[in-house]
Amino acid sequence: MLLRKGLARVTSLLEQIESPADLKQVPRSQLPQLAEEIRQYLVQTLAQTGGHLGANLGVVELTLALHYIFDSPQDAFIWDVSHQIYTHKLLTGRRGAFPTLRQLDGLAGFAKRAESPHDIFDAGHGGTSISAALGMARARAQAGASGHVIAIIGDGALSSGMALEALNDAGHSNLNLLVILNDNAMAISPNVGALAGYLNRMRSDKRYRWAKTRCKALLQRLPGGRSLLALLEQVKAGLKQMVIRGMLFENLGFTYIGPVDGHDLPALLDILPQVRDLSGPVLLHVLTAKGKGYSPAENHHCRLHAVPVFDLETGQPVETSAGDTFTEVFGAAACRHAEDDSRVVAISAAMCDGTGLNPFRDRFPDRFFDVGMAEEHAVTAAAGMAREGLRPIVAIYSTFLQRAYDQILHDVCLQGYPVVFALDRAGIVGEDGPTHHGVFDLSYLRMMPGMAVMAPATPDELVAMLAVALRGAGPCAIRYPRGRAGLDAAGELESIAHGRAAVLRDGEDVALLAVGTMVGPALASAALLADLGIDAAVVNARFIKPLDLETLLRVAGRVSRLVTIEENVVAGGFGTAVAQALSEQGLAIPCTHLGIPDRFVEHGARAMLLRRLGLDAEGIVAAVTTALSGAPRPAPSPSPAADRG
Amino acid sequence: MLLRKGLARVTSLLEQIESPADLKQVPRSQLPQLAEEIRQYLVQTLAQTGGHLGANLGVVELTLALHYIFDSPQDAFIWDVSHQIYTHKLLTGRRGAFPTLRQLDGLAGFAKRAESPHDIFDAGHGGTSISAALGMARARAQAGASGHVIAIIGDGALSSGMALEALNDAGHSNLNLLVILNDNAMAISPNVGALAGYLNRMRSDKRYRWAKTRCKALLQRLPGGRSLLALLEQVKAGLKQMVIRGMLFENLGFTYIGPVDGHDLPALLDILPQVRDLSGPVLLHVLTAKGKGYSPAENHHCRLHAVPVFDLETGQPVETSAGDTFTEVFGAAACRHAEDDSRVVAISAAMCDGTGLNPFRDRFPDRFFDVGMAEEHAVTAAAGMAREGLRPIVAIYSTFLQRAYDQILHDVCLQGYPVVFALDRAGIVGEDGPTHHGVFDLSYLRMMPGMAVMAPATPDELVAMLAVALRGAGPCAIRYPRGRAGLDAAGELESIAHGRAAVLRDGEDVALLAVGTMVGPALASAALLADLGIDAAVVNARFIKPLDLETLLRVAGRVSRLVTIEENVVAGGFGTAVAQALSEQGLAIPCTHLGIPDRFVEHGARAMLLRRLGLDAEGIVAAVTTALSGAPRPAPSPSPAADRG
Repeated sequence: MLLRKGLARVTSLLEQIESPADLKQVPRSQLPQLAEEIRQYLVQTLAQTGGHLGANLGVVELTLALHYIFDSPQDAFIWDVSHQIYTHKLLTGRRGAFPTLRQLDGLAGFAKRAESPHDIFDAGHGGTSISAALGMARARAQAGASGHVIAIIGDGALSSGMALEALNDAGHSNLNLLVILNDNAMAISPNVGALAGYLNRMRSDKRYRWAKTRCKALLQRLPGGRSLLALLEQVKAGLKQMVIRGMLFENLGFTYIGPVDGHDLPALLDILPQVRDLSGPVLLHVLTAKGKGYSPAENHHCRLHAVPVFDLETGQPVETSAGDTFTEVFGAAACRHAEDDSRVVAISAAMCDGTGLNPFRDRFPDRFFDVGMAEEHAVTAAAGMAREGLRPIVAIYSTFLQRAYDQILHDVCLQGYPVVFALDRAGIVGEDGPTHHGVFDLSYLRMMPGMAVMAPATPDELVAMLAVALRGAGPCAIRYPRGRAGLDAAGELESIAHGRAAVLRDGEDVALLAVGTMVGPALASAALLADLGIDAAVVNARFIKPLDLETLLRVAGRVSRLVTIEENVVAGGFGTAVAQALSEQGLAIPCTHLGIPDRFVEHGARAMLLRRLGLDAEGIVAAVTTALSGAPRPAPSPSPAADRG
Repeated sequence: MLLRKGLARVTSLLEQIESPADLKQVPRSQLPQLAEEIRQYLVQTLAQTGGHLGANLGVVELTLALHYIFDSPQDAFIWDVSHQIYTHKLLTGRRGAFPTLRQLDGLAGFAKRAESPHDIFDAGHGGTSISAALGMARARAQAGASGHVIAIIGDGALSSGMALEALNDAGHSNLNLLVILNDNAMAISPNVGALAGYLNRMRSDKRYRWAKTRCKALLQRLPGGRSLLALLEQVKAGLKQMVIRGMLFENLGFTYIGPVDGHDLPALLDILPQVRDLSGPVLLHVLTAKGKGYSPAENHHCRLHAVPVFDLETGQPVETSAGDTFTEVFGAAACRHAEDDSRVVAISAAMCDGTGLNPFRDRFPDRFFDVGMAEEHAVTAAAGMAREGLRPIVAIYSTFLQRAYDQILHDVCLQGYPVVFALDRAGIVGEDGPTHHGVFDLSYLRMMPGMAVMAPATPDELVAMLAVALRGAGPCAIRYPRGRAGLDAAGELESIAHGRAAVLRDGEDVALLAVGTMVGPALASAALLADLGIDAAVVNARFIKPLDLETLLRVAGRVSRLVTIEENVVAGGFGTAVAQALSEQGLAIPCTHLGIPDRFVEHGARAMLLRRLGLDAEGIVAAVTTALSGAPRPAPSPSPAADRG
């Protein structure tokens, strides 16, 4: 066990590696030592920075072996999701910057092309790697360019629809493409679905184990070159007859090799050159253990998937709790509704823990459905359930629900099913950065006919909104942030009515119309504005759709300017909805729309990012005073598209 | 051959069937005659109405057998895509209304719950049926409700990601769920991918044929009941050992039965009761021929997939050509670019014909990629190609590209790859109705940072815009309508510059800002307004993003009101973009936003629908005069969500 061996050990090997070329100088015999140094370094550093601990501890040997055998960046590693990329970053010249991981202006926690030529394809959502690799392989084949293309994908992400689409296309392609299936029997939650069962049978079936030994023995006798291929064909044919191992992938046109122990460096270093030299699409099945080498992470996969700053000995977060998170409040409220109404069911897409549904799953196991990393299927299956009279709650992070945009529109809204969407991690999520910020949902949901869209300013409002949603007869979405953002509203909550806003403060000069997490900063800015002699009304809109037109007209009629504030892109969001609605009423009043500008937002602490975006009380004050002075607002930074000729 | 037998034959059996109960009264021996009557009726009627000919001719026997054996609607048929639903409609009380097919206020060409309790789940996009069926089966299992749930899905749709996600979940579920794989080796274009190859091997391999015969013989000896199950298990186990047939589905947890000849009524009537009584998820593999029984359709699958009004003898469309369509113009322009620039490649998602890429495929077979009904994969693979320096053009219908919303955002825009999206069938498509109207694209694309969005008013502009797009350094989308919509601009086209609008008419009273297909009606309405003494400027915006702010400010500064006009939902579309941009410049000018209101638009002739929506010259005139009179516009019809309490 790693920690017993002493954390203070000198990281002598790791310190010598500034590039993959340096790694190749390390003798094979010393690679296990290097792996252990990396593991220690990751645990120690992540205890300070937070990050994706479990996944990274699981791929230390695999990453070392890949960089040892292949030549990055000519050989292109495409890391699916790419939260497991830390060892890759350490080996490709970013060890010095590593302590800035996930911090504002520091190293990203995911693949980022802007950081290094060794980061080939940015990712954050699951299942994209095979498609990207296939596209790259096609381009290289057309150009006659050299270099291998390798997608490294987990068993969880492999069950996402686009990964399966890509397998289907790749298996048909004859392209040289290596897919490494990093099988740890986990997505973030334990993996589910028939494919997981299939992989599990391969891991555990005695016949498979026998075949694995036999396969290994055969491979060890291979001389390489042309005869290698012939022998591999023999092995393959033999296995087909014997145990039909990997037939699912073989049926899809892949040459299947494995399973291989992903923590056995000699085995990996043996097999990788052999699969590298095969032609056509190849799937190498590697078995790894999430959290390998750090017992708190090995024992608590879900909790230590993505960790905040934590205690080294126990793996427990250092931060003390300061009230329930929106996530926890949602989970508890969903349970109460399930108690009262047997029609209430909950659906997760491989995110039971992150969406707060663990209590629901434990108390109502027959009414909880984790469908795997399959947001599209999750939404349409929910529509099918609603068709039969159930009241499904689909709990998915805002950014991941983007995957199901078409299904929400085509399968839920078009037919008007009462599916409740609980969008966690809406707005700026912080350290996970641009792939994870949930800043498009108000726009992509608002355009859907029949969809109601709410955002609570406080956890109490979330509880009330869930009740409103479950009373409704049509589709409904509630979006709320990560953590405990939101003003303290103890005792302030009046009841919430469908489509009604709450006027929190009257004012004669300007009206601040805010939704969700921006209600608190709006109130705070009104107090600051009062000190400047500006009398600002503050409205908690609560509903992005339908808008409370009556309240909006009343408030707008008393002021000379509206300022809308939302933690969402301005394009198509709450603010433009307000402007559109007032236009339709024949009211032309100057509007300032505060929100996320037309660019991707970097990673970093949420509060720092919001400040940078002008979405805190001081930023709102500055925008209001500028607007009231009559000066045009500084335009948001132009998008790259605007610069092209 | 059907036509030789005489089209005037009396449809005596079909006329007696008003419900599935009536069908069950028809003796088995007369079912083949009924099938032929239905086929004749379909060919004759569709020659008058247009419609999805090939797919419907392929499932006449299968539909008859399903309704004969199962009890709809307690047993729920969920038709994937549902364009193959005509026989189902004829058998479920809609024969009388059938000649109104696809016409405004007539029968829909797809499943529509509002039409009949026998239409269980609306569809139009591919791959949704297994998810919906699984959701329904879960709900029924929870409620202890009876009734079988049957998804009928084609081999093309089965390769879509969400269908594969659903298989993965279903195979793990132990739910009673029957998936009927309607395998005609075609999506709309010939099917591609490894799965298609796998199915094809099952169709053609001699061992499979032998096994099929043997399977049939065994099944014919089955007495039914409990012993049936035991025997089926024997059959299954035997087949596994012998030929590993269906192992792909078996590995995913399904009991695989088949293949069965989908035009052999006795065989279908034998096998369906047996699969009905199996427990757990079952996949029945049925082989059908698209266009069966009508030789023009059998011989020209692609062309006769969806037909306009056509000549019975030849299958040729009656309508004569009146200039090239946008689709054809796009295809030719893409070929010219490919000639000039070897980096240009084209990608289709099972829609080579519909997107006009047939000439490209034929001339540049190595640079054309049909990835199957897999929009998500198509987009990310294009990003991978762009990563390696290619200039991919992804041609997908506007409504189907909704499937790839997340991939466009996460894999293309976030990394700024120069992928060109050619969105055909944008706006109101007409007879295919709400699942096919492409009226959300301006909104869902505009919110993506870095994305440029254009809409041509004429085919000439489309050509110029494609050139602009391929010169650009970032992601770019061009959306254009079905057919020949658009004003005649012979000789009018100046060159198009990135981000620049064209002022077509000066005016002092009101400015009509139009995009794409609405430029023609805007110009026409300006002429009508002049007769009323209203001087209207007309701007062809061309770019929805980036907006031509300079031109907008100049034009807006001279008038008292703006009217924006787009064939897209108003929410988040062009009009709100204009209002937002002017607000940011400190300009508060009354705006009227014309476009698609916040409801789903029904099916019917495009011109009639546009008239109903007020999106023709007369509608624009009415909106302008109302707006200038100072009266508030009538609010758009409230969405269902707005009515809930």
